[in-house]
Amino acid sequence: MDSQEFREAAKAAIDEITDYYDNVGSQRVVSEVKPGYLRPLLPASAPLDPEPWSAIHADVQSKILPGITHWASPRFMAFFPCSGSYPAALAEMYSNAFNGAHFNWICSPAVTELETVVMDWLAQALALPECYLSGGSTHGGGVIHGSASEAILTVMCAARDKYLAAVTAHLDDDGDEKEDELWLHRSRLVALGSAGSHSSTKKAAQILGVRFVAIPVSEDAGFALTGPAVARAVADLRARGLEPFYLTATLGSTDVCAVDDFAGIAEALVPSAGTPQDIWVHVDAAYAGSALLLEENQALAVPFAHFHSFNFNPHKWMLTTFDCSAVWVRRRAWLIEALSIKPPYLRNQFSDNELVTDYRDWQIPLGRRFRSLKLWFVLRSYGVRGLQAHIRRGVALGESLEAKLASRPDLFSVFTAARFGLVTLRVAGADEDEINARTERVYEGINASGEFYLTSTIVNGKFAIRVCTGVERVAEEHIQRLFDILVERASVEVGNKE
Amino acid sequence: MDSQEFREAAKAAIDEITDYYDNVGSQRVVSEVKPGYLRPLLPASAPLDPEPWSAIHADVQSKILPGITHWASPRFMAFFPCSGSYPAALAEMYSNAFNGAHFNWICSPAVTELETVVMDWLAQALALPECYLSGGSTHGGGVIHGSASEAILTVMCAARDKYLAAVTAHLDDDGDEKEDELWLHRSRLVALGSAGSHSSTKKAAQILGVRFVAIPVSEDAGFALTGPAVARAVADLRARGLEPFYLTATLGSTDVCAVDDFAGIAEALVPSAGTPQDIWVHVDAAYAGSALLLEENQALAVPFAHFHSFNFNPHKWMLTTFDCSAVWVRRRAWLIEALSIKPPYLRNQFSDNELVTDYRDWQIPLGRRFRSLKLWFVLRSYGVRGLQAHIRRGVALGESLEAKLASRPDLFSVFTAARFGLVTLRVAGADEDEINARTERVYEGINASGEFYLTSTIVNGKFAIRVCTGVERVAEEHIQRLFDILVERASVEVGNKE
Repeated sequence: MDSQEFREAAKAAIDEITDYYDNVGSQRVVSEVKPGYLRPLLPASAPLDPEPWSAIHADVQSKILPGITHWASPRFMAFFPCSGSYPAALAEMYSNAFNGAHFNWICSPAVTELETVVMDWLAQALALPECYLSGGSTHGGGVIHGSASEAILTVMCAARDKYLAAVTAHLDDDGDEKEDELWLHRSRLVALGSAGSHSSTKKAAQILGVRFVAIPVSEDAGFALTGPAVARAVADLRARGLEPFYLTATLGSTDVCAVDDFAGIAEALVPSAGTPQDIWVHVDAAYAGSALLLEENQALAVPFAHFHSFNFNPHKWMLTTFDCSAVWVRRRAWLIEALSIKPPYLRNQFSDNELVTDYRDWQIPLGRRFRSLKLWFVLRSYGVRGLQAHIRRGVALGESLEAKLASRPDLFSVFTAARFGLVTLRVAGADEDEINARTERVYEGINASGEFYLTSTIVNGKFAIRVCTGVERVAEEHIQRLFDILVERASVEVGNKE
Repeated sequence: MDSQEFREAAKAAIDEITDYYDNVGSQRVVSEVKPGYLRPLLPASAPLDPEPWSAIHADVQSKILPGITHWASPRFMAFFPCSGSYPAALAEMYSNAFNGAHFNWICSPAVTELETVVMDWLAQALALPECYLSGGSTHGGGVIHGSASEAILTVMCAARDKYLAAVTAHLDDDGDEKEDELWLHRSRLVALGSAGSHSSTKKAAQILGVRFVAIPVSEDAGFALTGPAVARAVADLRARGLEPFYLTATLGSTDVCAVDDFAGIAEALVPSAGTPQDIWVHVDAAYAGSALLLEENQALAVPFAHFHSFNFNPHKWMLTTFDCSAVWVRRRAWLIEALSIKPPYLRNQFSDNELVTDYRDWQIPLGRRFRSLKLWFVLRSYGVRGLQAHIRRGVALGESLEAKLASRPDLFSVFTAARFGLVTLRVAGADEDEINARTERVYEGINASGEFYLTSTIVNGKFAIRVCTGVERVAEEHIQRLFDILVERASVEVGNKE
């Protein structure tokens, strides 16, 4: 494909993609292909000779599009949003043009330097404590990872190494005694989360080969992890000879958008703060972190000054095309000490003289995409106020659905109130079994119809439907239509069909 | 930014990006900005109100482009190539349009299904043994990761869990004895590589908290890891009570493109194959794997049938925009057993009934980009023969440079012969110290001039210049020009200026 062919193909693709977005609301939201649909449509092996763009392009329309679930649809209310935008799409075009592995500053200085600046902009916009700024007093800073899973694995690894270094600091570095002690401590390590923590914390512990303990949460406390529960779990584990070294606290849990009691957790961990037994606290705000753009939520971030790291995914609710997970640490040396490797073929004068940041030492992969460009375009194109308006709209739509559900207590109970654009609900019934069964049938029926796409969860044995209203194109008309369908299906279940 | 603004901005960007590629050869290859150049050019915080595209766009030209190192330049001969292409750029546009987190099949069935098909196409095109095909007899298959570092961490984690399960299989699952035994084995684990293995193996071991041992390689054996060296290292470690469980073997080492002795390594590990002490062998072909597209190299892949996993990066030499790291395993259950987590909010009928592949269980992150689309576009647009021609061109250009260097033994020694488009060279001198010093000065001088970008390495104390000829736009004229400059600078060093 030469330059001229590319110009023509790419401009036609721009029109097609824009049309796609303009019409995404009129498509069935979830793909209805059957497992295995694609293989019979494609040749058994790659072509030997070049195919023309017209053939490839035709297959996008006829073979790929039917297998796409439309995350940009205003009737996509499943999981959490994964939202792109036009400014982010433009940034991806330039980022791909400036393609490179970007593992060192000199690989493309703009890639590193824009990331530092934009992560500071974003930290300020979220009102994170100053310790997370690159110029802050604790030498912290931000870095863009691909996903919250990667962020959590990375900080858990740093937490482990920080902990092990501290508890063995009194021993001679080269002695067998230190090696033996290290293994003794390793065998006792426990990573903590709550029953509401995203599965990525358990997965990170599994990868690192340390125990994972989920601290229970209760419906009474809004499914939030509390300070006393953390204090009890830590004391209990230590009494059993185990060594808790890490905790994921959550701002906006996946199942119900619960917000952990950050102030209480900070207080619970005061006794070990500053000691070798200091427990690393990471705040996972993968979805709801975007809500810190709103002044009314910013008090939530004040206790983060006592914690060690924070991440949220602009690719979820902040209109920044996947993948873009923003991670901050209070002290960057914690990451670098755990992750830095300096072979000769990566040496260069700028890195050797410590004039520059080499973000490869802040993450698992070596190579890096130019992801800060899309954050920069999105922040500038929407402005902070434009992003706030987008977030507020999603929040208000969740509250609108909650109000509608509350108007029909004969049919529904609001399981967890609208928060950050997530409402969970259950269908009315005589007992838990009936409620679960009815709710699951309503849920399955709506998804099967293909008009809306919702997800469900099971919390402490209770089946609930999750409705997430954060996708940019969702409007009140879609909320009303979803409510009408919920009423229709719940009425059948409850037996008083209108 | 509305649809109409996007159409106009994006079409203008297409012209700009195409012009960029058409003219990239006439730019200085390495950015010459100074550390810290960008922050003073940007505001201290994100704008509150939206900025027009014209302002953002102007900054790309004036503030970002000066900080870009041009990896697409025909004078970029540093590191390894990281190569995009027009078909890959088109694929990225569609992939971003179909933006989603794609962690389950139902998130967009096309994303999962195309990946399975295309990874089979690619395995066939590389002549990988059938055990790596999704329909092969050992239930293996391929998956796309973001980087070779991620691939290596992932397979090392699976190797560890496979090993620990095997050596404790005789113990009761719930007993304390098993827990104690597990920790005893964990404390003895050793991941192996060679002195030429990429640093990602050491980094993965550091993350997992296991020992890393680099087996020495010698200049006599072309810096390749040999079977006898592996056998000796394994026997030696076991004699010391340690437990080697994993080995990275390399096809095309980073410093000199050495190729390990795969047949010899397979033979060395025969005694433990099939026993609980089976050592997982991963072949890291991050750069040079693309050369398996050529029939003349495909015999190299035959011994992989005895190994456990293989990866190469199409984003390096195969014209597929970063990031795209292709990974295959001989038995997919090894990955799934190490990495699967199934919380209720990810449940769905397709996954529960095991009708589909959920690639999230084959990797660290949960979410996934639609990366298979660019592999598909590249394979079809170039055809296998077109890609072969591209690889052959890079190989031939390396050989051309080697022949030129060999014609001036008064000035140069070829340190390692051209292989897979990489030549390493040293400047002539009386002893190792003089050779090192002269070679380093020539290297620093060429990079400072900005006309070419090269990297260097130090192998067994010997400083050498690496020249990688794999970038798509490199032509014979650039090789000749580089040689002329090398001659000019080496002549000054050697003191017989022409």
